[in-house]
Amino acid sequence: MAKIKAARNGSKKDVITLKAAGLFRKKGFAGSSMRELAEIIGVEAPSLYNHIGSKSEILQTICFKIANEFNIHLAEIEDTPVPVLNKLEKLIRFHINMMLNEYDEVYVANHEWKQLKEPFLSNFLIQRKSYENRMVKMIEQGVKNKELKNIHPYVAVLTILSALRGLESWHRHRKNIQATNLENDMVMHLLKGLIK
Amino acid sequence: MAKIKAARNGSKKDVITLKAAGLFRKKGFAGSSMRELAEIIGVEAPSLYNHIGSKSEILQTICFKIANEFNIHLAEIEDTPVPVLNKLEKLIRFHINMMLNEYDEVYVANHEWKQLKEPFLSNFLIQRKSYENRMVKMIEQGVKNKELKNIHPYVAVLTILSALRGLESWHRHRKNIQATNLENDMVMHLLKGLIK
Repeated sequence: MAKIKAARNGSKKDVITLKAAGLFRKKGFAGSSMRELAEIIGVEAPSLYNHIGSKSEILQTICFKIANEFNIHLAEIEDTPVPVLNKLEKLIRFHINMMLNEYDEVYVANHEWKQLKEPFLSNFLIQRKSYENRMVKMIEQGVKNKELKNIHPYVAVLTILSALRGLESWHRHRKNIQATNLENDMVMHLLKGLIK
Repeated sequence: MAKIKAARNGSKKDVITLKAAGLFRKKGFAGSSMRELAEIIGVEAPSLYNHIGSKSEILQTICFKIANEFNIHLAEIEDTPVPVLNKLEKLIRFHINMMLNEYDEVYVANHEWKQLKEPFLSNFLIQRKSYENRMVKMIEQGVKNKELKNIHPYVAVLTILSALRGLESWHRHRKNIQATNLENDMVMHLLKGLIK
């Protein structure tokens, strides 16, 4: 059988991770087997274990890779000396792009994190909570600055994050909308509202 | 063992439906048994069958009751001669109130409809699709009227419905926010945006 081909810019482990994300998204972590994953990649199951230790290790890799990308981006935004509104716009655009371009991995990190083992489970939850709190602080700052309306910051964060997560259903139904239009319209709606 | 007490304004079937919704939300439809339901209500399992035919029948009742409430409300809004913006506001407030006050049933209708049997499954999906399309038409009208910004109507509907569904996570984390403030802030955000 074939060897695992490394992606142009990644290791063999990256190939396995990406294929696994697709499988976990479709069948759930619990419903996916290493045998199926090997079949999808086109290798014998034992040869997977040359690159990764276990199915749980793959899930950890997916969740923490996605957490890194969101955390690094948030830290960059926080450190950029621009108005809160620009920060929020950057953040929303980043989430939309992640949902469109790294859909399988983002979906798995959003839905299957519950299957992480300790200490990874608690650690992942702490990171999510902290991400949310930093967004709350960002909006608090905007309200204080009078850049933003006097809104409960947690309600605004909930509205934004839920709307962004709703892009899952866009993926499922694949409406005939250009990604750029989707992104611009969603940013406009969440920052400037619907009223003309 | 005790008899099933009818709720003040409902039948015994209503009591069973409501308790079942709580159980299905917590354990999922597939993970819930009629025995557990009977225990929660405080009766012997066989006596449940005096009131309902099967677990599937309870799920149908929950999903179609919720569908009725949303459909009746939408039809009322459509028939009210007010600007689109007022219609949208009424619709958003209704969804929030349903999420806050009939949480178990709305949650089950949102998550467990996949477990409906045919022809109920297809029928439920057709109703959901139609609800979404009627919201799209409402927003199209508002864009045409120049009441609303020039937004892709489906993107706006997706943003609104996803944000409203996100109230599930508000339920889970129970922030210290008054329901009225939550409602007003969310309506403001989704219609008028964040920018001051």
